[in-house]
Amino acid sequence: MIYDLVVIGSGPGGFDAAVEAADLGLSVALVEKDVLGGTCLNWGCIPTKLWLGATSAIEELHNQAKMKVASGEVNVDFPALQARVQKHLTGTRKAMAMQLKKAGVELVEGFGKLGGDNTVVVSGEDGDTTLEYKNLIVASGSKPIFFPGLEPDGECVLDSNMFLAQETMPSSLIVVGAGFIGLEMAQVAHRMGAKVTVIDAMDRVAPLEDPAVSKALRSVFKRWKWDILLEKRVAGVQTVDGKGVLTLDTRDKLEAEKILVAVGRGPVTADMGLEEAGIELEFNKIVVNDNLQAADNIYAIGDVNGEIQLAHAAAHQAHYVVSRITGKTDAPYASGHVPSVLYGSPEVMRVGMMENEAFLSDYENTETSTAQLAANPMAQAHAATQGFVKVVWSGGKVVGITAVGHDVSRLCLGATMIVEQGWTEKDVHGTIFAHPSLDESLLAALKAERKQSK
Amino acid sequence: MIYDLVVIGSGPGGFDAAVEAADLGLSVALVEKDVLGGTCLNWGCIPTKLWLGATSAIEELHNQAKMKVASGEVNVDFPALQARVQKHLTGTRKAMAMQLKKAGVELVEGFGKLGGDNTVVVSGEDGDTTLEYKNLIVASGSKPIFFPGLEPDGECVLDSNMFLAQETMPSSLIVVGAGFIGLEMAQVAHRMGAKVTVIDAMDRVAPLEDPAVSKALRSVFKRWKWDILLEKRVAGVQTVDGKGVLTLDTRDKLEAEKILVAVGRGPVTADMGLEEAGIELEFNKIVVNDNLQAADNIYAIGDVNGEIQLAHAAAHQAHYVVSRITGKTDAPYASGHVPSVLYGSPEVMRVGMMENEAFLSDYENTETSTAQLAANPMAQAHAATQGFVKVVWSGGKVVGITAVGHDVSRLCLGATMIVEQGWTEKDVHGTIFAHPSLDESLLAALKAERKQSK
Repeated sequence: MIYDLVVIGSGPGGFDAAVEAADLGLSVALVEKDVLGGTCLNWGCIPTKLWLGATSAIEELHNQAKMKVASGEVNVDFPALQARVQKHLTGTRKAMAMQLKKAGVELVEGFGKLGGDNTVVVSGEDGDTTLEYKNLIVASGSKPIFFPGLEPDGECVLDSNMFLAQETMPSSLIVVGAGFIGLEMAQVAHRMGAKVTVIDAMDRVAPLEDPAVSKALRSVFKRWKWDILLEKRVAGVQTVDGKGVLTLDTRDKLEAEKILVAVGRGPVTADMGLEEAGIELEFNKIVVNDNLQAADNIYAIGDVNGEIQLAHAAAHQAHYVVSRITGKTDAPYASGHVPSVLYGSPEVMRVGMMENEAFLSDYENTETSTAQLAANPMAQAHAATQGFVKVVWSGGKVVGITAVGHDVSRLCLGATMIVEQGWTEKDVHGTIFAHPSLDESLLAALKAERKQSK
Repeated sequence: MIYDLVVIGSGPGGFDAAVEAADLGLSVALVEKDVLGGTCLNWGCIPTKLWLGATSAIEELHNQAKMKVASGEVNVDFPALQARVQKHLTGTRKAMAMQLKKAGVELVEGFGKLGGDNTVVVSGEDGDTTLEYKNLIVASGSKPIFFPGLEPDGECVLDSNMFLAQETMPSSLIVVGAGFIGLEMAQVAHRMGAKVTVIDAMDRVAPLEDPAVSKALRSVFKRWKWDILLEKRVAGVQTVDGKGVLTLDTRDKLEAEKILVAVGRGPVTADMGLEEAGIELEFNKIVVNDNLQAADNIYAIGDVNGEIQLAHAAAHQAHYVVSRITGKTDAPYASGHVPSVLYGSPEVMRVGMMENEAFLSDYENTETSTAQLAANPMAQAHAATQGFVKVVWSGGKVVGITAVGHDVSRLCLGATMIVEQGWTEKDVHGTIFAHPSLDESLLAALKAERKQSK
């Protein structure tokens, strides 16, 4: 048979595309070389959230203890937590398999390679299967990448997948790379009692965020006695006598029980026959046009097209491509405003433009208005008052919102809608914010005096 | 001098009105018979949130312990917590006083009574002061009310104010009234180890909410071994030999260390000379017209007008009245959609119509779509998966959203905006929801199959 749609990769992009297309009546095959769910479910967002949830009492207790309001001890049984994570992932994958079955999607297990003439050859345990397609979606995702000398050895030098698969949490940890992935995992290690060192070549942690966010995060981490080493170049990491040893380009050395290398993720495109099929790659990313097309009837969505490495962005692209294939739209893809979140405590939430972006983009009349979390009763209630909400305005409209601090992820949906709708001053009075709530810190930022960016 | 505006009561309504009017250049006097901030700050929302925040680690630990992922003990030092609450309240009141000063509002301490001829006579410690006004806002708030036999004695029978002022938390507690106030306080007592009994004349807890919400709450409370006594009539409560004794109309008796009576709150209107000044009262509430006017140049906002007992509703009314007085609007008051929240864990969040309201209002084509929290990874991460999000649709538009479960208060702002904007199916794809997030349970509810209400 000729499938209306073949999808390679069952992460948030590929899975959603397959199910939605099948629900709309298309014949669909979904190719997966490993387990269902991709990185996000199995080696990314979901396991880290289960870790953060399981350890959240530690952080809440710590904050109240600082205020001398509470005392005690919370111990997380790491092997039990890991077993719970596996149980959750297995259950979720099972539910996903059922959803595929119900929707009528054919799941084909194995490595998919483009075979020319609109075919994908899937090499599985029982040999090769050739799938013929009318449309193909490549959603093969991304994987950790490393600079030379930073490759994980699986002993004491780990990538994020290996770190998530550990049987014990180390008592000391060096994290190479101060981005969101490294910082979330470092927070969990910290809660479990590890001595944490974070090292980055840039001059601040979370270097993609607003500089004021980096500053706020760093100040919390320093209070936690983390060693934060910035503007440092790592020459290499290796296991020596059962310990992780990091060597700087100055030849100085650092030691820890484990080293987590989290310097970035790159697209999974190798050996898939993509270029042979006429697909252009650029730094391993699949190049797509405004319609997310890599070739006439081939689309690429999610991490593999290098647009943005977020599960919900992939899912959004999936919906677009299915709408396009089924003739529901012929407009170019519009990503909308994609929120990003660092979970933990403190958290970071961002949607739309940051101040520096808006300013550099020659946005008209860029202004910012800011509210500190210290003035918010919910932040006070959780004894976690460091942080702020910053609103970026341009031409009198909200073009971006950034927040850092305890629980600010809860501002995400409201902030996304406000940026999407480009609120003006007038709109601020059109919606009632509940009292008390952390939402009011966003309201306070929207109402605060605006400062011209320069 | 003749003040442009005199405000009676410095709760969320009165305080906001005074500051906003002064910021707009009006001469303003604010009359307060007690401390700044009213019930919400001093004997309501804020102290309970500090209690819930301080004890949240207990609940988080409990949930993870159930999963055998965590163990340990969290002890909250109640006297230390109460001291922290007082320190927070004192600090907030001080900040409010400074804000009044900065805005140029005259704070007049004492009991304000309408004196005829556009005057308010304030009886303070140093005698009477007469304030002449062009406009008056009565924002005198509400206080606990009691049916005969249910009056607190301040010993073992307490109202919510007394309960919040306790020096120790009782080891057993009977809560009369299963509304939000009683349930929030009962949750804190439970976390601190109290044996909790909740009693109500209605056939369900949280009787103003969607019946499915009541059912979900009750199921959690029963798991916590609370005694939930419904459809019971209380003949009386009293202190007998240092214990709280509750007598049912069947003459059966219940005992506990303390009894909290939380059967409702009523407007504060007594002895204020309101009726003499031509203001109409109905069941103690000040009757207002569509412009929130009780008389030509007299407005009533917040709990005292009986419209809705929520701080943010009072603040919203304050903004309207100041806009009206300053000539910025002459349209009638439109309350918009006012969200309500029960904090704790589980939480309840509601905005707009409930299913039964929409159905009974003959809303066109009422439908509902529901998602269970169990399918959400963030609920899973906190091992608190009971609950749901329910969307009420009418004529293809969202007219209400209700949620119950762990942390659902975080849906409040997004839900309020969605109801305010009357989202249709098409709008659901216009905003990107972060993954993973509890927000996705709202997204799942928006996308779920709709069922006709009947």
